Amino acid sequence: MDAAEFRRRGKEMVDYVADYLENIEKRQVYPDVEPGYLRSLIPEEAPEEAESYEDVFKDIERVIMPGVTHWHSPYFYAYFPTANSFPAMLADMLCGAIGCIGFSWAASPACTELETVMLDWLGKMLKLPEDFLAGTEGRGGGVIQGTASEATLIALLAARSKIVKLIQADHPDRSETHIISKLVAYSSDQAHSSVERAGLIGGLRMKKIPTDNKFSVRGDALQKVLEEDRATGLIPFFFCATLGTTPSCAFDCVTELGPICNAEKIWMHIDAAYAGSAFICPEFRPLLNGIEFADSFNFNPHKWLLVNFDCSAMWVKNRSDIIGAFKMEPLYLKHDHQESGLVTDYRHWQIPLGRRFRSLKIWFVFRMYGLKGLQAYIRKHVGLAKEFESLVRADQRFEISADVVLGLVCFRLKGSNELNETLLKRINNARKIHLVPCQLAGKFVLRFAVCARTTESRHVQEAWCHISHLASELLQELPH
Amino acid sequence: MDAAEFRRRGKEMVDYVADYLENIEKRQVYPDVEPGYLRSLIPEEAPEEAESYEDVFKDIERVIMPGVTHWHSPYFYAYFPTANSFPAMLADMLCGAIGCIGFSWAASPACTELETVMLDWLGKMLKLPEDFLAGTEGRGGGVIQGTASEATLIALLAARSKIVKLIQADHPDRSETHIISKLVAYSSDQAHSSVERAGLIGGLRMKKIPTDNKFSVRGDALQKVLEEDRATGLIPFFFCATLGTTPSCAFDCVTELGPICNAEKIWMHIDAAYAGSAFICPEFRPLLNGIEFADSFNFNPHKWLLVNFDCSAMWVKNRSDIIGAFKMEPLYLKHDHQESGLVTDYRHWQIPLGRRFRSLKIWFVFRMYGLKGLQAYIRKHVGLAKEFESLVRADQRFEISADVVLGLVCFRLKGSNELNETLLKRINNARKIHLVPCQLAGKFVLRFAVCARTTESRHVQEAWCHISHLASELLQELPH
Repeated sequence: MDAAEFRRRGKEMVDYVADYLENIEKRQVYPDVEPGYLRSLIPEEAPEEAESYEDVFKDIERVIMPGVTHWHSPYFYAYFPTANSFPAMLADMLCGAIGCIGFSWAASPACTELETVMLDWLGKMLKLPEDFLAGTEGRGGGVIQGTASEATLIALLAARSKIVKLIQADHPDRSETHIISKLVAYSSDQAHSSVERAGLIGGLRMKKIPTDNKFSVRGDALQKVLEEDRATGLIPFFFCATLGTTPSCAFDCVTELGPICNAEKIWMHIDAAYAGSAFICPEFRPLLNGIEFADSFNFNPHKWLLVNFDCSAMWVKNRSDIIGAFKMEPLYLKHDHQESGLVTDYRHWQIPLGRRFRSLKIWFVFRMYGLKGLQAYIRKHVGLAKEFESLVRADQRFEISADVVLGLVCFRLKGSNELNETLLKRINNARKIHLVPCQLAGKFVLRFAVCARTTESRHVQEAWCHISHLASELLQELPH
Repeated sequence: MDAAEFRRRGKEMVDYVADYLENIEKRQVYPDVEPGYLRSLIPEEAPEEAESYEDVFKDIERVIMPGVTHWHSPYFYAYFPTANSFPAMLADMLCGAIGCIGFSWAASPACTELETVMLDWLGKMLKLPEDFLAGTEGRGGGVIQGTASEATLIALLAARSKIVKLIQADHPDRSETHIISKLVAYSSDQAHSSVERAGLIGGLRMKKIPTDNKFSVRGDALQKVLEEDRATGLIPFFFCATLGTTPSCAFDCVTELGPICNAEKIWMHIDAAYAGSAFICPEFRPLLNGIEFADSFNFNPHKWLLVNFDCSAMWVKNRSDIIGAFKMEPLYLKHDHQESGLVTDYRHWQIPLGRRFRSLKIWFVFRMYGLKGLQAYIRKHVGLAKEFESLVRADQRFEISADVVLGLVCFRLKGSNELNETLLKRINNARKIHLVPCQLAGKFVLRFAVCARTTESRHVQEAWCHISHLASELLQELPH
């Protein structure tokens, strides 16, 4: 395919993409396929000779679409949102064409510099303390990670490296392995599975702190565990607070936890993967209070801020903490400016070496929406969640299982877990809408997350009618 | 921006991308900017109100392009290639539109299934042993990682988890920390910096095995270190072999190393990040001999197989090894089919949770080029490297520093390191072509890597004329 054909096929693809997104609600949100469906639809081996583009293109509808879960359908209410916007897609086209690998400043200065400035823009939108901004001479700064899982892992590893150096400075005789064997990290018992997984990867002990009746970690709960652990000779070094947990969008009490972590010299990382986007609205910004105590902070614009995956924004107060943890300097990656202190080589900030020009997506989206447009988008989703909450509350058969703060509603039929499992199964089997469950205090709960950019009040109303209807059917079948 | 405007702007962007790539050689390959150039060109904060697309678009040339290192210019010979092709860009547009997050089968069955089948296609193209293919009931299988760094880390962590379980099965009293403190992993002293970094991340001892005069690890060198380490009570558990090292594209002697690793129950991972693409050609496939001894294998189609970044292909012989290392099953990620044994939940195979629909790129590229087209592409680049090698060899002032096997030529002026450093500085300062150096056996060496899809013989000739001219100037300045 040469540039001339790309001009033609690219324009066709632009129309296909626009058609797909404009008509997405006509597609069944969750596919009917069984495991292994795809293998029999295509050849067992790659073709020897080139095929025509027509043949490839027509297979999108034949092979791919029947097996797609349509995350951008207004009938998709599962997991959390993943962003999708036209400006982000345009920026990604440009990113693909430039196709630079921005591991160092020299590998493509624009790639590094736009990222640093975009993370400052975003940090200012969130009203992050100045410590976290790169500015022109700050000690902090931001970076785009692929996912929140990677951000948590990076923070954990940086904290591990820092505490080891700190202890060895006082006790040069203690080996790294010995120190690591004594370390202990903490998170909420509601934290995302990726936090526990980060502990596994880093070979580190990770404990879950029990939450209160709002699914929030409180200061006294952490303090209690710290005292117990210090008494047995363990070394607490890391706490991952969650703002907006995955099960119920609960918020750890960072204003209580932060001062404890600071006093005890424990690295506090804040994971606000989903909720973070909302903090650009003044009315939700108080949810981030206590950020001033954190060493690192992360959220995913690729969830709820209209920047397509992957774009997970992370800031650190002291970038030397993160860089120092993994710095490697082979000759083939050296460049003239790196010792000047003026440049950022983002390869030291992340697990992979290579990285795409992802900040273009932020730049396009923020400029095309403006801060006001982004705030309006967040508020609309929160409004839709509140609307759904009202519908649930108005129905005596149901209960709300957790405070509705942002775009997630946790609800269930009053009754057994089995009853709710059956209801969810019927909802998903009907294929009209798609939801996933969670467990809260031993209860099986349905999660209704407002996800798609195109979700409107009518979709929420329709979803509720459908759920309510399936619930009626189910309840009628039960013996009284 | 609504769908109607996206149709218009998307088509303009397709033309911009085509124009950029068609005319890329007219742009200066390496930018003139100084660190910090970009910040002053754009506002300090995101706009409150939405801007027009025209304003954003015109800033591409004003703000971004002056700071881009043009990796796809035919005058770019630095690092290793990164792929860029029209079919891959079309597939990425589709990937962005579908915008699913394929962490589990249910999250978008097509995303998981196409990936499994594409990795089988690619495995067959490389003539990998059947053990590595997923087939319909195999124990092995492939996965797309973001980068080779992540693949190495995943392999290392899977090996760590496996050895710990194995030792604890015989000695239930030994703690994980105690076992880990005795473990030792190995790689070539020519291995990529990411291998050493993986050891740092996993908190694992990592040793470098000395290479022979071809920069290759041989069996006896590994055997010697293993004996020494076992004698001091260490537990060897992982060896990362490199096929196509970053400094000089050297090949570890896997046919000698593999049997040793198998006999000693050491996990052998093969990192062929750059060279792997060439193994689709029968004449280069012997370089992969010994793969049958490996537990895991990885290379980057996003380097040299025309699939845009990121697409790092990894295979394991026994997928339970990799899945078992990190499996986490929160309720919100469970789905009906996951216990059936028929589905793959790729989140267990990787560091991040989220993942894009990257296999679309492979599918489009392999079908639009065909195996023959891809082989021709590899052969063309190898031919251009050989052409450059001949030019260097014909000039008595220069020497070739390592065997030219694929698309990389390592060369230098006969003389001091300082002389060569000066030559490289002048080459890069002239901005006509872009190269990076490496160090081989204490010598400062220039690397000429054939990178761009559009590089032709005339560009290589021109590059050589330029280098030769700058060398003449430099040598004339020297006192005799």
